[in-house]
This record gives sequence, structure tokens and C-alpha cells, in this order.
Amino acid sequence: MVTTSPEADVLRLGCPDFNQQLWQDVDDSLLQASYRNVRQATEKLTAGLSPEDQNLQSMPETSPAKWHRAHTTWFFETFILKSHRPGYREFDPQFAYLFNSYYNGIGEQFPRARRGLISRPDIERVGHYRQHVDAAMSALISELGEGELQNLAPLIILGLNHEQQHQELLVTDLKHAFSHNPGYPAWAEPAGAGHRRGKFSWRDISGGLVQQGSRDDRFCFDNELPRHQVFVADFQIASHPVSCGEFLAFMDEGGYQRPELWLADGWEWIQREKACSPLYWFKTGQDWHLYTLAGARALDMDEPVCHVSMYEAFAYAQWAGARLPTEAEWELASAQCDTPGYFADSGQFHPRPGPHQGRPGQMFGDVWEWTASSYAPYPGFKAAAGAVGEYNGKFMANQMVLRGGSCATPNGHIRPGYRNFFYPVDRWQFSGVRLARDSGA
Amino acid sequence: MVTTSPEADVLRLGCPDFNQQLWQDVDDSLLQASYRNVRQATEKLTAGLSPEDQNLQSMPETSPAKWHRAHTTWFFETFILKSHRPGYREFDPQFAYLFNSYYNGIGEQFPRARRGLISRPDIERVGHYRQHVDAAMSALISELGEGELQNLAPLIILGLNHEQQHQELLVTDLKHAFSHNPGYPAWAEPAGAGHRRGKFSWRDISGGLVQQGSRDDRFCFDNELPRHQVFVADFQIASHPVSCGEFLAFMDEGGYQRPELWLADGWEWIQREKACSPLYWFKTGQDWHLYTLAGARALDMDEPVCHVSMYEAFAYAQWAGARLPTEAEWELASAQCDTPGYFADSGQFHPRPGPHQGRPGQMFGDVWEWTASSYAPYPGFKAAAGAVGEYNGKFMANQMVLRGGSCATPNGHIRPGYRNFFYPVDRWQFSGVRLARDSGA
Amino acid sequence: MVTTSPEADVLRLGCPDFNQQLWQDVDDSLLQASYRNVRQATEKLTAGLSPEDQNLQSMPETSPAKWHRAHTTWFFETFILKSHRPGYREFDPQFAYLFNSYYNGIGEQFPRARRGLISRPDIERVGHYRQHVDAAMSALISELGEGELQNLAPLIILGLNHEQQHQELLVTDLKHAFSHNPGYPAWAEPAGAGHRRGKFSWRDISGGLVQQGSRDDRFCFDNELPRHQVFVADFQIASHPVSCGEFLAFMDEGGYQRPELWLADGWEWIQREKACSPLYWFKTGQDWHLYTLAGARALDMDEPVCHVSMYEAFAYAQWAGARLPTEAEWELASAQCDTPGYFADSGQFHPRPGPHQGRPGQMFGDVWEWTASSYAPYPGFKAAAGAVGEYNGKFMANQMVLRGGSCATPNGHIRPGYRNFFYPVDRWQFSGVRLARDSGA
Amino acid sequence: MVTTSPEADVLRLGCPDFNQQLWQDVDDSLLQASYRNVRQATEKLTAGLSPEDQNLQSMPETSPAKWHRAHTTWFFETFILKSHRPGYREFDPQFAYLFNSYYNGIGEQFPRARRGLISRPDIERVGHYRQHVDAAMSALISELGEGELQNLAPLIILGLNHEQQHQELLVTDLKHAFSHNPGYPAWAEPAGAGHRRGKFSWRDISGGLVQQGSRDDRFCFDNELPRHQVFVADFQIASHPVSCGEFLAFMDEGGYQRPELWLADGWEWIQREKACSPLYWFKTGQDWHLYTLAGARALDMDEPVCHVSMYEAFAYAQWAGARLPTEAEWELASAQCDTPGYFADSGQFHPRPGPHQGRPGQMFGDVWEWTASSYAPYPGFKAAAGAVGEYNGKFMANQMVLRGGSCATPNGHIRPGYRNFFYPVDRWQFSGVRLARDSGA
Repeated sequence: MVTTSPEADVLRLGCPDFNQQLWQDVDDSLLQASYRNVRQATEKLTAGLSPEDQNLQSMPETSPAKWHRAHTTWFFETFILKSHRPGYREFDPQFAYLFNSYYNGIGEQFPRARRGLISRPDIERVGHYRQHVDAAMSALISELGEGELQNLAPLIILGLNHEQQHQELLVTDLKHAFSHNPGYPAWAEPAGAGHRRGKFSWRDISGGLVQQGSRDDRFCFDNELPRHQVFVADFQIASHPVSCGEFLAFMDEGGYQRPELWLADGWEWIQREKACSPLYWFKTGQDWHLYTLAGARALDMDEPVCHVSMYEAFAYAQWAGARLPTEAEWELASAQCDTPGYFADSGQFHPRPGPHQGRPGQMFGDVWEWTASSYAPYPGFKAAAGAVGEYNGKFMANQMVLRGGSCATPNGHIRPGYRNFFYPVDRWQFSGVRLARDSGA
Repeated sequence: MVTTSPEADVLRLGCPDFNQQLWQDVDDSLLQASYRNVRQATEKLTAGLSPEDQNLQSMPETSPAKWHRAHTTWFFETFILKSHRPGYREFDPQFAYLFNSYYNGIGEQFPRARRGLISRPDIERVGHYRQHVDAAMSALISELGEGELQNLAPLIILGLNHEQQHQELLVTDLKHAFSHNPGYPAWAEPAGAGHRRGKFSWRDISGGLVQQGSRDDRFCFDNELPRHQVFVADFQIASHPVSCGEFLAFMDEGGYQRPELWLADGWEWIQREKACSPLYWFKTGQDWHLYTLAGARALDMDEPVCHVSMYEAFAYAQWAGARLPTEAEWELASAQCDTPGYFADSGQFHPRPGPHQGRPGQMFGDVWEWTASSYAPYPGFKAAAGAVGEYNGKFMANQMVLRGGSCATPNGHIRPGYRNFFYPVDRWQFSGVRLARDSGA
Repeated sequence: MVTTSPEADVLRLGCPDFNQQLWQDVDDSLLQASYRNVRQATEKLTAGLSPEDQNLQSMPETSPAKWHRAHTTWFFETFILKSHRPGYREFDPQFAYLFNSYYNGIGEQFPRARRGLISRPDIERVGHYRQHVDAAMSALISELGEGELQNLAPLIILGLNHEQQHQELLVTDLKHAFSHNPGYPAWAEPAGAGHRRGKFSWRDISGGLVQQGSRDDRFCFDNELPRHQVFVADFQIASHPVSCGEFLAFMDEGGYQRPELWLADGWEWIQREKACSPLYWFKTGQDWHLYTLAGARALDMDEPVCHVSMYEAFAYAQWAGARLPTEAEWELASAQCDTPGYFADSGQFHPRPGPHQGRPGQMFGDVWEWTASSYAPYPGFKAAAGAVGEYNGKFMANQMVLRGGSCATPNGHIRPGYRNFFYPVDRWQFSGVRLARDSGA
Repeated sequence: MVTTSPEADVLRLGCPDFNQQLWQDVDDSLLQASYRNVRQATEKLTAGLSPEDQNLQSMPETSPAKWHRAHTTWFFETFILKSHRPGYREFDPQFAYLFNSYYNGIGEQFPRARRGLISRPDIERVGHYRQHVDAAMSALISELGEGELQNLAPLIILGLNHEQQHQELLVTDLKHAFSHNPGYPAWAEPAGAGHRRGKFSWRDISGGLVQQGSRDDRFCFDNELPRHQVFVADFQIASHPVSCGEFLAFMDEGGYQRPELWLADGWEWIQREKACSPLYWFKTGQDWHLYTLAGARALDMDEPVCHVSMYEAFAYAQWAGARLPTEAEWELASAQCDTPGYFADSGQFHPRPGPHQGRPGQMFGDVWEWTASSYAPYPGFKAAAGAVGEYNGKFMANQMVLRGGSCATPNGHIRPGYRNFFYPVDRWQFSGVRLARDSGA
């Protein structure tokens, strides 16, 4: 099987009705339903967490679950209610400081590394905050005229996508925090057994002068635009992401001890961090185990390797005589591959009816796949106007693009043009490896 | 008035019945009562704290309140129940790892800097842990024969004193964590108004070949022994600790900008930390305020300056043309001063009937007073046998002794020979300054 | 004038006879002459430096001049003499450890950050090392047969280009070290006055499906290959690099205080480093000065701004309503611009007969120009075989490409396809800014 | 033999004629001779060092030899010539900034960690600086009247003692720098073979109310005063410092792996530094070697262990069932022990006629011996007036006292009351261990 981490099942409860296509033919009842669904999905995720669980922060890059719940709420309050709902009563003026993440245009922020020190407001008050904003948002949507609706819908949908991103972050951040607890807390039910992994193959992809980037007739982030031409040579892409068994072979052949396989910065990183396996792996006697949100368990050799840095992905590829695909290659390949449930008429990704993972050609929803491309603006990129313009553009340095979505990405939030980005050293996301190679290589 | 911080009132609820003299003529009912009182005092301290509050850790040196509650319990379980109560059932084997602070003789410890990541066990389970251990301790004491009682009492009383230390740490650690919250959480009621501070004077203290150290016929820590001879020259000591108003004068005369007033390491410290006032002070417009556990309030010029490092204490003394007293001087002075409520027949410190702070000569229970003495073994010092020998001795490097007890020190836990110790840079304790000078200076 | 730093004149003494085209029709006398010229140029650079000057290392990223002299020699000894000259006597076995920079394939390396601690061998012995290797190289070249010559020439020419790179680094590293000396040591003669800067204009560049990368029929580094197709949209490029006067306007309008102009990592960098001007700028009273290798002098408003990080370049471009060009754009523009002395029949850059800097369209030899492109492999990139394969490929992460060559780049070492690369924070190279913008912007 | 490091012979060339007693009956010819001798001794030390050698700085705590030569000269220029010699022409105004070590009263200082970046002035110019100041000092002394001589002599003698301190630092700093060179530079001749170490014994020392501190009728530093009473109990002291063979036994029994032997800060230190032997020890195959200024050689089991931190000294003592002596104990013991060549009429330490090291009771001149006492002011301590008051007093925090002088301490600079001080982690001084224990232990 290529079951992925059990976190999958939790998030797959997601929001089946959230239709990104509403961009064009939005109506208020659809918007209401989408808003309600996404917001409820967040609350469902945190329902089983204690107050202490919700306040954990294990490193500056991660945030407490409570903070995610408040910050996503702050987003609607700040960018929509305060500006577009006359008479809106701000829930608590201090929240503008506490729950602003990085929007310098909005004002100062509480220091990111200390979010775990915000014991007050407590989860109950954050719950009230969410209800307060939800009520105001619902009223706003109801009372919008047709023209205003078309006007505000993009910003509301941006807020919903923003919240979906934080749903995934909430899960990855929680996993990171829990992993420090020697009791290996189980938060989710273990995933059931899946299919065995299918036969590996290299798939030929034809290049040429192709289009890259998302279509602008439905929702996407500003960094996916404009759709533009790019020249791609013919290449091959792996039918599956790299499995744990394959990665173990790399380790067994001294992969972490051979500098010639590593980027110079990666080699420096494993010396400094003493990295010698993917994150969350640990050895009990002779056997490798890993920590998941359903607790610790033995490694399944068939599941995709996950929680590796770009450096590890690169070194593995070197060892395997292959390379990572570029962003453009990945996007092109995903269009030519057989992707279950994707590229239906709606142009979006529907919930998978069952454990299709492992079906050859499946490129979405298992692990985020590191690409060889640094996160950079597309030709002609324009950041969105106003403070929301800080959403994406200012991070275009030092990070690498990941593609495909993970088991923790909410349904309806995955699309072929989606660009996720993290630093090469980051491992706490559900990040894995898909190999590529030059045609004729 | 020389009111001290409002934290005082909380802790002064302490444990009036805990008679340290029971060392010699202990009986089981007195021991039971003392045990119950001290243990309940801890729970009273944390009663008003939410689960998130109890899990805060703002720096490696501090611990979450929940951790303090569990660690003090672990102490009884580890050093008494496991060894001396046959058939005792360990509450949870993992706690031996989670709640060991630094006793290498007992085994490995959960990393200190990450105590705030232990969301599980939650506070309810820690409550059960306390009850489990309390029941076993109560049964143990009841069932001890006379001889065994005399045997075990010192260890039990050590455990109670250990818990009292953690009561104070719990308060100081909480204050530090709360201080990062821009809402300035109020946890305690503000202290009522007290007397104005009395007239300052220098008090002459006669030296000679005197005894230093605690008497060994009642409880004290191993580091207070053996009582030994030391030669002290005549000197003078201040009638009051330095007040906020006095410290402000130092600041106004450029105290933090004049290297000639500072120890070299202290000067380096203020450059690095950009320290320019005591901890928890902040300026609102032209006025100085401070954060207390009863919230933020304006500075009272008469209250003792508090939360200063030894470097600040030293620089202030230099500026004032005086110096810090040595440990031996401090101890000698405290015996010659008029100390309300102290040195009664019982040889212990009784709860003060009212706001006597500020009465000249009062040397106990306001602020810990930095001495000029590094924390070192007394001549002939022997660490206690076994793992509890790690309690004190191994910290005898790089730290300075503080004397006198603070407003956060539980009653019954203060005595003239008590040696507290912290690094010169530490400021999150209730640490203040009392000046001394050479006779004839 | 757009005089650049006075360092120019020193390096422009370079090696006029070093013809990179010899790749194809190399003969031994030409190779001998090239070898001699390049090697002598290094010695000329360090002739005026004292033993202490030659041993300075001011940060881990820089190396002492003496080390550069020895390391470039080690390159020839290690990759050519030891392997291809039977009977070659190694000068000193320890040098293999001391002067290996980062070639893991060759063995362990002396720690990079401590190169300034190698007082022994002294400069005299390093001089002997150079003579020893030069004699052996000269004999080798003389005695090579025609076939062997064709075989070894690429490696020898690589060694010469390697040495030219280190000539520039030697100068930049020395400048960084000297800048810490309050006496502002002058090492070179000030450059004479040049022309005033010409009129600024935007130049239209036509895009399309174009070729990127160097031609493989003459020398280039492996990272410039393979020449490949890339699609570039029409764009505009600035006629001149940004001048000091223009950059000062950015500073005067609060450029360093406005987060909206900066990449997130760049904003974090200026907070951390307290950067508020280009490196080597300092203010005397109201006037800006800069440190050059000819000593300190007043800023010339017309000269290109230099020693800026990519973050500063990016922020400037944001402020100016423009952007940095991509690598492909830069390379395309340089082919369409009027580049004095370049693109002659030989396809290489000849020494400029005079101070042509500042002539509109001049894109080579003033300052290295930050591009918007991260340093990544070209499609189909293959690292050179063997240990020299570590030369370029392993650095393809986290760095940005700079193009064009600086005043400190030796003549004959500049070409349109040349890819220099540094981290976004690096400022000690002669790095400047040329703006681009979308057509129709 | 208890030969100490070969550095001994170099420094033992010291200044036999420098009579500290001249304090009282100084005359100008004696002062001239002393001045000349001490100043020449510095130059003799550096005579064999290359310009690069003299500019090495391997950590912020150490300084280049050239800097020591200039700084000691600056001391005379600043504190004597500028103030007391009208018409004195300052050699170079920038030197006041470059060569001030830490005297805030004099003005700003060049950053200590970057002293190794001062390639200019070169050694020749520093030589001229020394000659310039020496000539002025000589003229000053000649022309002083009797009264002025008595007045200035203490400051001149302070300057000479200051220079002697820097002679030792110059040697220890050079050793530290050279130790990073894999060629193990030899700067001195190896010491000849000495006696074998004599039989170990514990010596009984009678305590009581004794005097501590130096006599004030001849030169000493301000920190050795005032001589004062202190009570010391009877104790025992080891006849010899701990030998390398003894220390090896500690290592072989897992000394570096047993936390119970270490101070908490020391345990943290060895984890952080991965310390597992004294500094400069290294293993070749199965055999321990050490680096000395005469190059690397095999360990001699009889020689005193050297270059250990206070933490290692403490852990060794714990392991051996003993402890470190306090300062007062050490001073008392040295007076009761048979100290060859010491306590002659002159009250000073004369050059040892031969290799007396290893003679039981010898407490001076082999290794600095860590005491259990932190560096603190003596009761009644007054820092010297003016900027020279920064010499000692401001370092009285976080450091420990060492006693006895090392093989690198110039003759004439050792006395029983001498207090050296370093941080507990410091190991680059010639620091060793002498054990003590309580009487009856």
C-alpha cells in the first residue's frame, strides 16, 4: 500500500462543497455554504485537542493550533469586516497585534517565536472570537447586493483558501510539537491498510513551448499567475514518489555519509543537525519506526518517504542517478499523467473515493514533492494590491517550490498550478521526493 | 510604604503550621499536617490558572506550573515511596523521565528547555498524580514506627522544603511567562497600601571571629553546613533595601551608560541585552510602570527595587559609594538587627501580622538581596549522600548567593542561614539590593 | 564619470595575452605564455603586501592572500602534476590538507574559518611552492606531445581560469580585511577621473525562444552548459547600472525603513545586521564617504553603487518601480547592447582602451549585477567528471546569479555566458544593480 | 622529572635584575636597569617570530604578539609619558585606539576580537614605537628629581609588572594560535630531562586566624591588598601538583563520562565542547601526545598535568576523594612549605638554579594552580585611583583565582600573594591542579 500518514483521514473530512469555480458564477448561498464548511473544518480539526495541546509551539516556524484558529479569523476581520462592513464592532483591539502574522502593512506583530506564550486569550475566548466573526461574515454575505458580492467574493474566497492552508499547517505544526512528547500522543485513528504499491516505471513526457501557471478564470493565488510560456525539453518522470524502502536503501549504502551526493549547503546542514534519517524516524533495536499523528508505528516500506528536506531529496536523487523535476516539468507531467479524480469538468480535485494512492501516475495528495526550482515570480508577476499583497511575493527568496499537495492538504485546495514553498532545510511538512531524468539519460 | 509586589499576599497564605523544628521531636501527626499543608499550598497557588497558563515556559531557566506540580510530586515518589514503601505502585513509569529535573543519579531527563512542550499529561492527570502520591505518603507516615519515623523524617522534610522552593519558582516563572503577554494578565489581587518607608540609616555591625552557617538541630539544606568560624571586620549595613526611587536616581544620572560603575562582565551584559532598567519596568510616556502578578501599575518610589541582576546591584552600589555585603556580613547583620517576628523561641520566621515591611532593620521577606559572595562550599561541606546530594553542591560555580527571602518565599521557609543562589545575570527572581560599607568609610 | 573603484587599474594589468580561444587550436607556446601570464598576474597583485597583510582573514567566507596564492598552486599540483607527471615530487605533503578548499573527493580540508591562522608556511615558502610548481608545469607543457597536449589543455586552462577567479577574490577579501583597519590602508593608486555618466534610458529588448548558455567551442565553466533554449518575453533594460546618487535618493526616502520594499528575508537581514547603507560607506559629519583599496574618499554620485546585497538590490528596484533582470534576460540584453570591445571575432572581451565605463549600454566590467535568478543547473547540466566536478555544481542552492564582471575581474575572464553566484546577503564582492522592467510597464 | 613545558627556558631568561623591592629604596639607575631588562625580555621573546606569527589571533581572549608589544608600550605612553612628561610627542594618535585593551576611562577601544586584523602598523613600525617610548622613558627617569622619582616609581613599576604579565600571555596566546597549525610549529628548544618526580605525600598545614594578602612595603597589585585576617581550619595539601599519569588514570576510569564528578556547569561544558582530555593532548594510535612550543611530543607521565579548566580540576579532585584548596589555604601552605629559592631576605622569588621542579613542596613556577576561590575583593579593597583602577577590580565576577605562577611566568614576577584569575572554562593558560583535603578526612 501507499497509505500515507493517518493524518490524511482527518483532513479528508475537509469541505467537499467548497467549489473554487464559484469565482465566476458565485451566488450568496454557495458562498455561505463554502464559508461555513471551511470554518467548521478548522473547528473539527481541533475538537479533540486539550487547551494545552492547542497552545504548543515547538519552534519559531510553527504556531499553536489556537493561534491558527485566531489568525484565520483575524484575516476575515481585518481584510473584510473592518473595511467593508460599516458598524462592525472589533472583537478585541489587542487581537490585531496578537494574531497578525506578518502583514507589515497592517501594523506591528507579536513576536512569532513567542506565540506559544499566549495563554490568554484561552481557547474559549478564541472560540467566541470565531463565532463573533462568523456571525458578522454571514450577515455581510446575506446583505451584499449582487454587484458587491462579485466585488467581495474574491477576497472572501482568498480568506477561505488562507484558512485551508492554515488547516494543513495546524496539522503539521501539531505533529512537530507532539513529536517531542515521549508518550507519542495519538490524535487521529490509524489509517486502514491500502493497496500495495504498483510497479515502478519511468514515464516519457513530451516538452516544447508550453503554458505554465494557473488559469485565471477560477481562484488561485497571485503567485500562480500570469499563465505564461516556457520552453521545456523532453524528459521522464517517475510513476511513484520514492518509498521508505527505497530511501532506506540509500541510507544503508551510506547516503548520509557521502559528501559527493550532497549539495554543499546540505552537507553542512547534516553535519550541523546530525541528520541521519528523515524526520520522525527512530530506531528501536534494529527496526525503524516513525511517529505519526496516530502514534508511533513500524515503517511501511511501500509508503512514500515523507518529512525529508530538499537536501535529502537532492542527495537521494544523486544516489539514484536521477534528479528532481523543475516546477515546469512537474506541472507538465501532472497534466499528462493519469490522475484519478482530477481534471474533471470542474477543473478541480475531487475527494478520492478510496485509497487510490499508489496507483501509478498519481501525483496529487500524497506528499508535497520537492522540485528543483527556487520560488520566484513568474514573468509578469504582480503582487495583489494592498496588504494582502504581502501574502506571497515577499517570500520569493531562498525557498524552493513543492508541488502536488499532501495527505494533509484539504480537498478542494489542490490544483495543478499550486505552488507551495519552503526552505531547503524544512522537514516538518509532509514533503517527499519524485524523481525525474533527462530523456535519453 | 515598602509594599512589595502583590505576589506577597498569595504566598503568605503559605503554611503557618510547618514547623521546621520538628526535625528533632517530630511526631507523625505533626508530619502529616505539615505534609498536607505544604502540598495544599502548591495547589492553592495554581487553582486560578488555566491549563494553558500552567503549561507556559518562557525560557530554559523557567518551568511550567504544571511541571512544578509534577516534579515536586516525583521527588516524594522517587526518593521516598519507591525506596521505602514496599509494594508502592509507580503512577506512570514515563514520569521518571519527564519530571526528573537534573538528578543524573536517577537517570536521564527530559530536556529542560522543552518542558513547555509537555501538553500531555494534562493538568487533570497531574492532579491525579499528586493525589496518588499524597495518599501513599499519608499511609506511609501513618504506618511508620517510631524509629522509622525518625529515620525518614529528614527526607520527608527535605521534600517539603523542596516543594516550598518550587512554590516560589512557580510564581517567578509564571510572572516571567505572563510578562510576555501584552494583556498583562492579573493573577493576584493588588496588595493594599502599606506604611511609607522609614528613615534611612547606616547600622554599625561589630565583627570578629563569628559563627557562620545554620544550626544542625533543625532542618536546613546541606549547603548551610557545617556551622564554622569566619573572621569578619566591623562594617555598616543599610537599614533598608534600595528603593525604586533611589534606583531611578541612579538611572537618571546615566547609571546604565557609565562603564566605570560596572563589572566588566556586567558592562558586556548590558550591551548585549540592551538592559536599561530593571526587568518588568516599562515607560508609558514619561512615567515608569512595572508589571506585577496583579497586572501593570505605576512605580511606587518607596518600594524596594526588584528584579535586578547582580551586575545592576553592583553598579548601583558603586554609584552610591558603597558595596554589597558578603554572605557572612549579611548573616551577622541579620542577627544583630531588629527583625520583627524572627528569632523567637522556635528559631523560625513567623508570618508577619501586618505590613511591617519598611520597618528599619527588616531584612527578611521583601526581596532576595544579592551578596558579594559567590556560591561556594563552606569549609568542611559534605554533600548529602545519594542522588539527593545533587541538590546543592554541583551548582557551586559561577553563581552568587542571595539572602533574606522575598515576598514570594513561603513563610516557614525563611531562615537567617538560608543560601539562595543564581547567576549574576538572572533577574526573574525577586532580587533586590541592600548596601554595606566598611566601618569608617 | 562612472569610474569604478581604483582596484580596477590593478587588475586591468591582468593578462592580455590569455586567449580563451586556445581551447581549439592550442599550441604549447601559447599555453606556456598564458600560464606564465596568469601566474605572474597573481604575484603582481600581492607584490606590495606585507607578510601580515597576506595572512589576514576577516570572516570565514574570505581567505588570506597567501592562502589564495598557495591554493591556486595546489590546484595545478593536485589535478595535473600528481596525476599526469610521473616522478613529480610533491612540494610538501601537508599542503594537500592546508590548501584544499572544498574538494571532498581529494581528502580532508583545513577548516576554512581558520585559514588566517596559518602563519607557517610563510610567504617566502609559499613563493617557493609557486616556483616549484611553475617549473614542473612548464616542463610538463614543453614535453607534452600533440595528443597529450590536446588532452591536458582543458584542465590547464581550467586551472588558469580558477586562478583568475581567485585573483578577484584575493582583491575583494583583502578589501574586506583592510576595511576593519581604522587607518584605511591604501594599497592601490586612486583611479583617474573619468567621463561623467551618460544619459539614462530604457532599452527595448526583443524576446522569443532564444539560446542561453556559453558556446562549447572555447573555454567556459561546466555550469554555463549546455547551451539550451529558453523562452523570454520582451522586456526593457536600463542603460546604466544604478549610481550612488540614485541609491542615496532611495536611502533619503527611507528605503531601509520601509518593510514593503523588502523581501521578507531581506527585512529580517537588515534588522539583524543593522544595515543602513551599502558596505564600506560611512558618514563623516553630513557627508558620505566610502572605503576603497586606494583609501577612503568622498562618494562620487555618478559611480555605480557597489557592495550591495541582493536584498538591497531588490528593495531598490521595488522602490524604483522596476525589478531585477533574470539571468536569461541579462544574457540576451548583453548580446543586443552596444558593448565596447566585446563580441569581436574572437568572441572574447578585450581590454578596454580607456575609461569607457559609463558609455550607455556597457554591461561588462564595472560591477557584478545581481539577477533575479537563483543559481541552478541548466537543463541537461552535467558536472565535470572527477573531483573537479565539485567546482560548481554542489553550490546550486540558496545562491543568486550575478552577471557581467566587475572592475576587479581580470580581463580575458569576462564573457556573456559567465555565471557568478553568491548568497543574497553577500556584499563584499563588487556587486551592483541594473534594473529591468516588463515591456509596456 | 617534572619538567614543565619547554616554554620555561625561554621565559626563564627573564629579567634577573628586576627587584620588586625597589619600591621603597628605588634609585634611578636601578629603575633604568629594571626598565631596560623587562622591555628587552619582551623583544627577546618575539625575536624568532615572523611577521605573520606575530599577528596571529586564534580566539577573542587571546591577542597577537605584535599587539602585546604595542599595548605594553601604549601603557607607558598613556599613563606616564602623556601625563608626566611635558612636551612628549605622541608616536601615533591612532595607537590610542588600536592598543588600548579595556580602559574605558581612556577612551574607546578597537574591538578585541579583531586584533588579528591589524596588519598595519607592521612589526617594524611597532618596533619603532617601542624605541620611541623607551627613549622617552629613559630620559624621563634620568631627569626626574628624587621626589618625583618616589612619586612616579610605583606607576613605572606597575607598567613593568604589566609588561611581565603580557610576556606570559604572549607565550600562552602564541601557543594557542600555533596549536591550530597541523605542522606543530616549534618555537623553543625542548627542555632537557629533569629529575623524576619525588614521592607523593599529604602535608599537614595548621590553620587559625592568619594573615592573607601581600605586604604593602614592596610592589604588588591592588587586588592583593589589604593584608587582612582570615580564619582557616587545619587542612592538608598535596606535595605535588597532579601529574599527567595521574590524570590519565582519571580518564581511563571514565572521568569525562561520569556526571557525578562534575559541577553542573562543567558537565554542560564538556557536552558542549566535547572535551575529553586536557587541551593540546592528542592521541596517535594508542599513545597520548601533547603539543608544546617546542613541537609535539609524547606525554611524560611524571610532568604536571597542564592546560586543564577549573571544571576538569574539580572533577579530578572529586574522583580522587579530595578537593581544591581555597586561596587562603594555598597562600598559607606556601608559607609553610619548603620552597626552594623563595622567602629569602628580599621576599622575592629568585631564579631556580636548576631543575628543582618536582622537589616535594615546590609550589611556585610550574603550573598555575586552580583554587576553589572565586576572584573577589579582599575586605577593604580599594581599586587604584584613575584609569589604572580598571586593571583588576572590574574583573571580580565569574572568575576563579589561580596561584603559584607557571613555567611561563617571568622570574621576579612570582610571589606568594599573587592572584591570577581566569574563567572556569579557560584552558589556554598553563593551569594545573594541586589537591587539598580537610584534616582528618
